[in-house]
Amino acid sequence: MVEIPESHPRKRSLLSRQKIVEGSLRGLLAESAMIAHGRGEAFDYLLGERTTESAGSAIREAAARLTAANHPVISVNGNTVLLAGKRALRLAAVLGCAVEVNLYYRSPERVNGLLALLEEQRTLVSNGDEPQGFEGDWRKSVMGVTLLGGSPNFRIEGLEGPRSQCTEEGIGSADLILVPLEDGDRCEALVNLGKQVVVIDLNPLSRSSKMATVTIVDEVSRAFEGILSELVTNPNCIPTEWDNASALRESLVEIAEYLESN
Amino acid sequence: MVEIPESHPRKRSLLSRQKIVEGSLRGLLAESAMIAHGRGEAFDYLLGERTTESAGSAIREAAARLTAANHPVISVNGNTVLLAGKRALRLAAVLGCAVEVNLYYRSPERVNGLLALLEEQRTLVSNGDEPQGFEGDWRKSVMGVTLLGGSPNFRIEGLEGPRSQCTEEGIGSADLILVPLEDGDRCEALVNLGKQVVVIDLNPLSRSSKMATVTIVDEVSRAFEGILSELVTNPNCIPTEWDNASALRESLVEIAEYLESN
Repeated sequence: MVEIPESHPRKRSLLSRQKIVEGSLRGLLAESAMIAHGRGEAFDYLLGERTTESAGSAIREAAARLTAANHPVISVNGNTVLLAGKRALRLAAVLGCAVEVNLYYRSPERVNGLLALLEEQRTLVSNGDEPQGFEGDWRKSVMGVTLLGGSPNFRIEGLEGPRSQCTEEGIGSADLILVPLEDGDRCEALVNLGKQVVVIDLNPLSRSSKMATVTIVDEVSRAFEGILSELVTNPNCIPTEWDNASALRESLVEIAEYLESN
Repeated sequence: MVEIPESHPRKRSLLSRQKIVEGSLRGLLAESAMIAHGRGEAFDYLLGERTTESAGSAIREAAARLTAANHPVISVNGNTVLLAGKRALRLAAVLGCAVEVNLYYRSPERVNGLLALLEEQRTLVSNGDEPQGFEGDWRKSVMGVTLLGGSPNFRIEGLEGPRSQCTEEGIGSADLILVPLEDGDRCEALVNLGKQVVVIDLNPLSRSSKMATVTIVDEVSRAFEGILSELVTNPNCIPTEWDNASALRESLVEIAEYLESN
């Protein structure tokens, strides 16, 4: 891999790309994962690679709903673990919820490889600094995060094939699923089961974005970071009547404005 | 690979994706080629996966300049050969120009692999139908297309490393280079050498798009097809005073309009 100079204006984006390329070479990603990442890069470029105003509102709504939920879970795929696994674990530690590996193109090798990587990341996070404002035993909270997905014992109704598999303890019994980079069909099936689905997706026109209860149109690391910061600085926030379609329209307007300003 | 049903609304896009994944598995592409393809997918999505009005004007301008050029050449990379190699060869046969493999991450294995694939494609194209309106011996014209890039003997001034290598017969002595999916630095270096550079790039904000003499903001197969059709139906078209910056602004407005109509 080429060294990226500290001064490069798009250093963060290029580092993310390296993580995905390396993960792919290590066999942790499906064939089309790099293509999906490239789509994400393009959409993030069009957002100006920043958390827009409408994404900020969606992040606050997501934090409020995660706080109010009885049994939230964070569902992760390969790209999420590689790009933002540690941030997902920090968030899970604060929420006291599990992280479940859930893959569209499921294979035991990839699920186990990602669970092993999450275990490494969990140790690193537990030895790292706690989020400012966090009260409690950080190390214990982090090491207490359950990592699920290795032994699926539940099927998402309305879906066929390996992508329907999940765990009863996690996605199966969750009332709210925070899921970055989700497939449209699975998002729809989860919503049809009466669950709240908070999606993180850079494409405001995707089926997942349209099907979700709350869509955060933002890059996954920035979105996790934003939710975490909201949870620790504003722990008493309350869910609103959220109009997701109108929030998505706002994000389209933001992209259009960005394009026209260039 | 999964079979894509005939009725799928995005069949063409999914077939292109398969070609890139397969090419990558065959070692014909650099690590980041799939990510680049994903970025292209996203931008094409935002164009509505069609040749827009401003792209149509750029295609007509490109055809006129290719006709007027003394020594045009078509420069191709891995993604272009996989997605539209046969179309590039049809275009080269009509123009009587060479096709040169020119890679940003150059390796002898990939250059030779792509040249071998182009040879296969050339035979297929020579046995296929000629473009409607073509006058002359199709088979002879196609088999007469020179495939360059295997033995670079020229350096593009102002560039360092393997990406500066090309052939004197091709890019080195060309007065016009038609190049899809080009790197911004190389585009700039070629323009600085006094050459006309016609770029095909789905991202109207990329450095290549901004540096090029004429930028066609369109998917590479559609752009080649459009140029070919223009060459055979309107062979006497004449270059205009082309304002590329204004054409790029139009394509941004088209994307913004598409977003707002969704």
